[in-house]
Amino acid sequence: MERIRLGMVGGGDGAFIGAIHRIAAQMDGQYDLVAGALSSDPDRAKASADRLGIARSYSDYREMAQAEAARADGIQAVSVVTPNHLHAPVSIAFLEAGISVICDKPLTATQEDAKALSDAVARSKARFFLTHNYCAHPMVREARAMVAEGALGKLRLIQAEYLQGWLSEDVQNKQASWRTDPAQSGAGAIGDIGTHAWQLAEFVTGQTPAELSTDLSSMVEGRRVDDDVRVALRYDSGAKGGIWVSQVAVGQEGGLSLRLFGTEGALEWRLQDAEALIFTGKDCQSQRLTRARDRSQSYRTPPGHPEGYLEAFANLYKDIADVIRGDETHLDRIPGIRDGMSGMAFIAAAQESSSRDGAWVRVAR
Amino acid sequence: MERIRLGMVGGGDGAFIGAIHRIAAQMDGQYDLVAGALSSDPDRAKASADRLGIARSYSDYREMAQAEAARADGIQAVSVVTPNHLHAPVSIAFLEAGISVICDKPLTATQEDAKALSDAVARSKARFFLTHNYCAHPMVREARAMVAEGALGKLRLIQAEYLQGWLSEDVQNKQASWRTDPAQSGAGAIGDIGTHAWQLAEFVTGQTPAELSTDLSSMVEGRRVDDDVRVALRYDSGAKGGIWVSQVAVGQEGGLSLRLFGTEGALEWRLQDAEALIFTGKDCQSQRLTRARDRSQSYRTPPGHPEGYLEAFANLYKDIADVIRGDETHLDRIPGIRDGMSGMAFIAAAQESSSRDGAWVRVAR
Amino acid sequence: MERIRLGMVGGGDGAFIGAIHRIAAQMDGQYDLVAGALSSDPDRAKASADRLGIARSYSDYREMAQAEAARADGIQAVSVVTPNHLHAPVSIAFLEAGISVICDKPLTATQEDAKALSDAVARSKARFFLTHNYCAHPMVREARAMVAEGALGKLRLIQAEYLQGWLSEDVQNKQASWRTDPAQSGAGAIGDIGTHAWQLAEFVTGQTPAELSTDLSSMVEGRRVDDDVRVALRYDSGAKGGIWVSQVAVGQEGGLSLRLFGTEGALEWRLQDAEALIFTGKDCQSQRLTRARDRSQSYRTPPGHPEGYLEAFANLYKDIADVIRGDETHLDRIPGIRDGMSGMAFIAAAQESSSRDGAWVRVAR
Amino acid sequence: MERIRLGMVGGGDGAFIGAIHRIAAQMDGQYDLVAGALSSDPDRAKASADRLGIARSYSDYREMAQAEAARADGIQAVSVVTPNHLHAPVSIAFLEAGISVICDKPLTATQEDAKALSDAVARSKARFFLTHNYCAHPMVREARAMVAEGALGKLRLIQAEYLQGWLSEDVQNKQASWRTDPAQSGAGAIGDIGTHAWQLAEFVTGQTPAELSTDLSSMVEGRRVDDDVRVALRYDSGAKGGIWVSQVAVGQEGGLSLRLFGTEGALEWRLQDAEALIFTGKDCQSQRLTRARDRSQSYRTPPGHPEGYLEAFANLYKDIADVIRGDETHLDRIPGIRDGMSGMAFIAAAQESSSRDGAWVRVAR
Repeated sequence: MERIRLGMVGGGDGAFIGAIHRIAAQMDGQYDLVAGALSSDPDRAKASADRLGIARSYSDYREMAQAEAARADGIQAVSVVTPNHLHAPVSIAFLEAGISVICDKPLTATQEDAKALSDAVARSKARFFLTHNYCAHPMVREARAMVAEGALGKLRLIQAEYLQGWLSEDVQNKQASWRTDPAQSGAGAIGDIGTHAWQLAEFVTGQTPAELSTDLSSMVEGRRVDDDVRVALRYDSGAKGGIWVSQVAVGQEGGLSLRLFGTEGALEWRLQDAEALIFTGKDCQSQRLTRARDRSQSYRTPPGHPEGYLEAFANLYKDIADVIRGDETHLDRIPGIRDGMSGMAFIAAAQESSSRDGAWVRVAR
Repeated sequence: MERIRLGMVGGGDGAFIGAIHRIAAQMDGQYDLVAGALSSDPDRAKASADRLGIARSYSDYREMAQAEAARADGIQAVSVVTPNHLHAPVSIAFLEAGISVICDKPLTATQEDAKALSDAVARSKARFFLTHNYCAHPMVREARAMVAEGALGKLRLIQAEYLQGWLSEDVQNKQASWRTDPAQSGAGAIGDIGTHAWQLAEFVTGQTPAELSTDLSSMVEGRRVDDDVRVALRYDSGAKGGIWVSQVAVGQEGGLSLRLFGTEGALEWRLQDAEALIFTGKDCQSQRLTRARDRSQSYRTPPGHPEGYLEAFANLYKDIADVIRGDETHLDRIPGIRDGMSGMAFIAAAQESSSRDGAWVRVAR
Repeated sequence: MERIRLGMVGGGDGAFIGAIHRIAAQMDGQYDLVAGALSSDPDRAKASADRLGIARSYSDYREMAQAEAARADGIQAVSVVTPNHLHAPVSIAFLEAGISVICDKPLTATQEDAKALSDAVARSKARFFLTHNYCAHPMVREARAMVAEGALGKLRLIQAEYLQGWLSEDVQNKQASWRTDPAQSGAGAIGDIGTHAWQLAEFVTGQTPAELSTDLSSMVEGRRVDDDVRVALRYDSGAKGGIWVSQVAVGQEGGLSLRLFGTEGALEWRLQDAEALIFTGKDCQSQRLTRARDRSQSYRTPPGHPEGYLEAFANLYKDIADVIRGDETHLDRIPGIRDGMSGMAFIAAAQESSSRDGAWVRVAR
Repeated sequence: MERIRLGMVGGGDGAFIGAIHRIAAQMDGQYDLVAGALSSDPDRAKASADRLGIARSYSDYREMAQAEAARADGIQAVSVVTPNHLHAPVSIAFLEAGISVICDKPLTATQEDAKALSDAVARSKARFFLTHNYCAHPMVREARAMVAEGALGKLRLIQAEYLQGWLSEDVQNKQASWRTDPAQSGAGAIGDIGTHAWQLAEFVTGQTPAELSTDLSSMVEGRRVDDDVRVALRYDSGAKGGIWVSQVAVGQEGGLSLRLFGTEGALEWRLQDAEALIFTGKDCQSQRLTRARDRSQSYRTPPGHPEGYLEAFANLYKDIADVIRGDETHLDRIPGIRDGMSGMAFIAAAQESSSRDGAWVRVAR
């Protein structure tokens, strides 16, 4: 099978998420990374590209979009791994050039950018994908299937958490700097990891909250973005929910979890035990479900040989490769513009609620 | 050492918490249970008393209070293990008779009763204790000591949960019936287990929330009390917090936990792993602290021989016995009227907030 | 119901297991401790008895046996909580006086004593019970029921461990001193905790190993008894097994576990998570079985309110009370002379195998 | 940096370990897979190679070795992922052609082959590596560093387990068939996973057992190789140890663990929680050590983003790439011929001991 020709914007030296995308893209041998605009500085872009064995280096993403669109062997898709404020302009440039986009989350830094990007997706024949990677963990896919088939009965309680501690102090490094600069990130923890929790809950339950009440905090002196987020949720179905995300939960490395309680049973998934799903029935007996129960069969190793974050990320890239080649079997499990817009609506509603001292605010649809 | 002469009101056949109090009282050989008004029906009271080897049986608690106060060998303390709406009148009767009271939680069914009981405590020379048993787990006592000595730095995040699933359906039995009858219980999950979570957080942190925003739900059709409670908390110190308690968290048996995050470290305690305390430092390395670290030394068995719920309950009874005998060394770790009033203020503020659609409400001091 | 009149030999100040037996005996209100020979020193015996509210104090167990047997209100049973070398003479004295014996494990310090005690049991109309307390944990009882009904299919692998670290150094205290003195203990870790592991495996599987190969070690310089024991087991059924017990497994407090693998499923129980049983089927999906699955219903608290070591010990005392009163319903789940003799056969075979450099040795039946 | 030109022998359709090696090799972008003899059937070899984008396909490994050695752009290393009985002839062919070998474990199917291969390694200027992948988990590397620096004091107890259940029945598939055929595998569970456990213990402790006593079993009717292995170990240092590996531990997927107890502390690592290391001190307080403690820094993702089996395998390939390029910094942590010969000595000694009914047998050095 032909490999897909892939480009990358962002992701030069010191970047974290660019390296993750590269490993994920190559895990299953479905992509060749052949072009990049890894930095806006031409020399640094070229140096990074050389180190990574990327054939064609650009320093301007607009130039890259046009040049690649013009080549017979031009890239078919581009990974956008810049800070948030560039997601929209970069993605739009490639979409307009007819090149599919694999964009990191959150969708954009501003609501205006989100609208513009959404319009561009609607206009383009190319595809837009958003790497909410956690929903590609096999047991998360299985959780979604179980909820859909009614294993929990009618959902009553939906609780998502994402706790990190790495911003407990006034950290200054490449990762922290742009994330805590409102101009580049647009929002703090709510954008960086809150949208992950939101999307995970939405993906698994198939339900979007109708309204929310939020308390955004900024715990570290001088910080200009939120770093602790508490959200109460109400669903049209009558379910209630909560999201708690924090980047000042000191000592926590990756405390992402989802807990669901329905009329007939409960489900729990935790990133730190990602290959298991805990189902508890009304009889209070828990089952630890592992691969044999996962019907998505999204694994590369035999049972008992743990896979993790990179492999889940690669699951997304693998599904995306199928879609780009024309096989839409798994399209519905790949996050895209709808997830992105939902996350932006979450941010907007949460910021409004918090500014109105926790008033309940409708989530835009 | 002389055993303390103990009485009991409530706790007849089919009662759960009466049996718990009896086991806790006798665990360390500090009490003799010699009198009881186990039921308001004289025959049933007598039958229960006989089965339990209780010498003096009453059917009227007022009569019991007066008769016991009049005897040279009358009871020195009484355990009040009735439904909530009787806590106040029973306790007041014994306090007025000069007999110390060991009352089950929550304090009372109504705010009026709470005020009356609080006044009675102030007037009486006898003591009033409230069996918020979870704060007597040795590692909870150790957690409190660690917070007090600054092991976590300045507290930022305080999160308590108590999840149960036993009221996921419209259960009809002795335990469920009075708890879901507002006339007897006063409140639903917020009173029954919400006050436990509130007191646990207050006990360990030494801080009382200044204001809260609450969403009370009633998930089971026809239920007249709340069964799911979500609370956002703000502290005068700048800390934020949350309480989530539910009795419709299907499959959960005793999901009580407390998580604290400060500037220097984090602490977690879970009832289902009650003999450990997880401390995580800024370096993300966790320590599982067990008995060797507990400075309260509230154990009866050697390390590695697990103790649990009954033993923690008995720790309270042991401390109470000391106080009744005049040794106040551990008075500050026994919950009493202050904890009870704080719990009632929590209920009042939460109910008001929920009725005002989650408005932030000050917690009365 | 009349309480059983209980006596105690051993268990004075500083003793650990005597206090455990007393708490266990009184947990369910089935016993009155009315007589004791807590020490061979009359003054110390009397002082201990007074502190514990024990009416009749003796300093000689033979005198106690005869005096109690002669009283109309004499004790019906005696708890023997002395060092091992006294188990036989004390137990025999009471059995010959027609008083039932509740003896701590291991049975005796020597094989000769074991034979003599076994003969005494056979001659006496009184009962003999041995407090292998771990088999009275509710989920251990459930495990036994599951194995018996074939939930695991045919057993293939049987693995028991009991790891402690408290003798990692040359400890000198009351507990350590007699346990490491061959004259008082008879054996080291193999007797103290090895017999627990052996009995637990035998109780749950219903099978006794046919032969074994053992390597006994003494890791601490100057120690005169074994402190690390590795045993390979062969069963007549074709199953293979292993026992590993150690008291130099530094840092381990109570690492007792049993793992069983059959043709159809696996079961695991761990003391440190004593209220759960993990069943894993051929499909590799695990179930965490808790109280709702325990058919022995040996609990005092509602689900989710953890019980532990003392409560399991009390389960034995409760069953023993029934038997003493004439109700033999649960006789088959109370360890007795048969378990004791099996444990002694284990010690004998293991010592012989180890002295013959691990040769396979038949276990006497 | 130039990528290393890699070949592969074995690993065609339906093979498990070939795919693992390919993912591991490409994870960090250090290799180009350019040649292969994926099958001895030319058509199938070609078809597999095409599917994988491998430029040069061979059906005969000897021809491949010579042809590649003759090319200026020939492969620098070859991955040998055949059944065990081909490890020696294939590896020798490439070593003699001056091409480095990355061979899957166990070393060979027979002791004669092992000797021949060892001789070939000694004669060749090319390198020989053996993919005992578990020792490349970052926390295993950290464990080794901690042992070496004396964090545990003097080691006393060394226990390794590898439990699987996938051969609990008479499975017939590509993986099972050659593993249970003595002609292809040479040994059963002892070779397939026993050598992993042996090497893991040896790698972390730096000690090789002096003698062992073994009981090999074959639990499934008709099976011609061992499927359950119990080993007692004695070390020259005075330490004792045990290995238990099984492929009939029904329901177990990947139960690999290593537990060490020394005079000063204990360490535990489990594959199913691979990113943590549990250190317990003499005070019985456990520390859960994670990445921040790993000094090997063998990660690609930020803390809290779990890596697993494939990433550890890739850690080996990354270190091997360094060595092939001439950087021997990490040579000492890559398993090679010494580990392979040690594993073969383990198998030989265990088989002899078992055939002599568990007699203690010296392990050849």
